[in-house]
Amino acid sequence: MKISHIEHIGIAVPNLEEAIKYYENVLGLKCYKQEVVADQKVTTAFFQLGDTKIELLEATSPDSTIAKFIEKNGGKGGMHHLAFAVEDGVANALAECEEKGIRTIDKAPRAGADGLQIAFLHPKCTEAVLTELCEDPNK
Amino acid sequence: MKISHIEHIGIAVPNLEEAIKYYENVLGLKCYKQEVVADQKVTTAFFQLGDTKIELLEATSPDSTIAKFIEKNGGKGGMHHLAFAVEDGVANALAECEEKGIRTIDKAPRAGADGLQIAFLHPKCTEAVLTELCEDPNK
Repeated sequence: MKISHIEHIGIAVPNLEEAIKYYENVLGLKCYKQEVVADQKVTTAFFQLGDTKIELLEATSPDSTIAKFIEKNGGKGGMHHLAFAVEDGVANALAECEEKGIRTIDKAPRAGADGLQIAFLHPKCTEAVLTELCEDPNK
Repeated sequence: MKISHIEHIGIAVPNLEEAIKYYENVLGLKCYKQEVVADQKVTTAFFQLGDTKIELLEATSPDSTIAKFIEKNGGKGGMHHLAFAVEDGVANALAECEEKGIRTIDKAPRAGADGLQIAFLHPKCTEAVLTELCEDPNK
């Protein structure tokens, strides 16, 4: 696959408003959008830094994967996933992964936050980093 | 502080050679440097993706913080720290953090991998993400 850049870093937070305050008031970044992603049961907040976004994720339900991540992490947030922008498309990248024996969580691209088409690879096959592949259908 | 970009993402791995194979053969990235950082008790491997590097970290000693992170994580690696490039210098950023009540692990900039001056903030004050501030003294 051909990765052009790190599209975003997904960071789980227990409280989105508190986290936004830290990113804005201490790090000096600016939240440009908040978005509810209903099927992921999260509210997200985005910050742009060069080519790469920071995506903060707060669970909207106790059975959200983000809620489970935080519970497993002793109630604390932390870096949750790493997302790469692929130039040759997510479907091609998934086919290549299958060929190379890399397990994928998604079998086909699906709609993600911020208008992207996305798919996740399984952390058992990605050196323990939950890895997302992204493609912007408008580019 | 003024952050220009994400300088790198630090990823702990139990076996650097195995991890490099995944990043090169599956993700199609190219390791441009390996470096032993003696005082951190790690060997690092770097990949460049736009402005941002991926820094893989393998412990060289059981008392390395990376060895402890992996032990705590059930023998698995994972995303370990997030490093921001600060435009106004690490010393200024540390002073600003102190003013704002953000605990820092380092009280002054020190030499890090890849020729940078660096300092770490305490994850208790950074929404549970171990955060590094970096400055390239040659820029």
